Amino acid sequence: MKKGLMIVISGPAGSGKGTVNAHLLATGEFVYSVSATTRAPRPGETDGVNYHFITREDFEARIRSGDMLEYTEYCGNYYGTPRKEAEEVLNSGKNLILEIEVEGARNIKKKFPEAVLIMLLPPSFRVQEQRLRGRGTETEEKILERLARTREEIKESDFYDYAVYNYDGADKIAANEIYAIVTAERLATRRNESVASTYFDEN
Amino acid sequence: MKKGLMIVISGPAGSGKGTVNAHLLATGEFVYSVSATTRAPRPGETDGVNYHFITREDFEARIRSGDMLEYTEYCGNYYGTPRKEAEEVLNSGKNLILEIEVEGARNIKKKFPEAVLIMLLPPSFRVQEQRLRGRGTETEEKILERLARTREEIKESDFYDYAVYNYDGADKIAANEIYAIVTAERLATRRNESVASTYFDEN
Repeated sequence: MKKGLMIVISGPAGSGKGTVNAHLLATGEFVYSVSATTRAPRPGETDGVNYHFITREDFEARIRSGDMLEYTEYCGNYYGTPRKEAEEVLNSGKNLILEIEVEGARNIKKKFPEAVLIMLLPPSFRVQEQRLRGRGTETEEKILERLARTREEIKESDFYDYAVYNYDGADKIAANEIYAIVTAERLATRRNESVASTYFDEN
Repeated sequence: MKKGLMIVISGPAGSGKGTVNAHLLATGEFVYSVSATTRAPRPGETDGVNYHFITREDFEARIRSGDMLEYTEYCGNYYGTPRKEAEEVLNSGKNLILEIEVEGARNIKKKFPEAVLIMLLPPSFRVQEQRLRGRGTETEEKILERLARTREEIKESDFYDYAVYNYDGADKIAANEIYAIVTAERLATRRNESVASTYFDEN
């Protein structure tokens, strides 16, 4: 059984990560990595689905035991990727989606150079702003904070392998592009045994 | 207009290159590079479609003037890729398919490191042999010669970027995989301007 690929998908608020990931999960070839966090659940969030909600003590114990593939502290809370689940998915041959931010992505790339890093983006900063305002669910302050954060993150995102743009109403196309990236990466000679060593095997 | 990609597709006899390429051409996003050669046309071959049939004198003049992207001599005849046609296709934004052998592919990669090199293969050497015999169109001597040539070429093909297998009756799948490779390569950050330099442009 060929191992699955570790796929990091990052994207600023308004990039449509949730919808695009749902298309990928629907293929049955991807599994979403559920992060662990020490922050409190928000209304509507389910433990084990949106996050594994764990205590600070438990999180720090898991860091020490090497059970977090990567972790980061943000606004006073830990966020991290549990190792055991990730390894089980990859060993099953399915591709693992890590939906993490730029700092976490950088940590993953350092530890797992074979990971595929994809930045999902709105068509432009202007469209991103329109989308955030269009939601009508967030305060002006929160929107400006998200946009400022995007500026910072994009500046530091040059180490990503691919950039995929999610145009209005085209989330299916963006998902297909990510699917194509994964297909291509799995066919790359540098990820596989040399053709010469396998092609003549049956003789 | 974003430039097209230069795609090299090589494959031993029996790999189904012709059928797979036909699927790619049918998308309208690819143009087939017609090679120039000094060998005589075979029955059924059309000048300008299968090859540009030119004289040895003309071919050597074109080598001197730099009008061949790459060329090779094989069984006493020249085979080469005309530069002008190739550049026109790439500038139009379409992807150029060069169907060339391993030696030509190596020359292309040296001169155009951005070219994408794909090896199309039968599922295995054994299946390749079955396919060649199944055709019933070639002498035993010719079949053995092709198989020996395959052994040589595969051994030297480690520099290809991708290996795609064409399983029996699955030429459409192989074509889709090549299409996915091209999609992915066009989204690769190393081929494009940095996101940071374009994302905020409209502001």
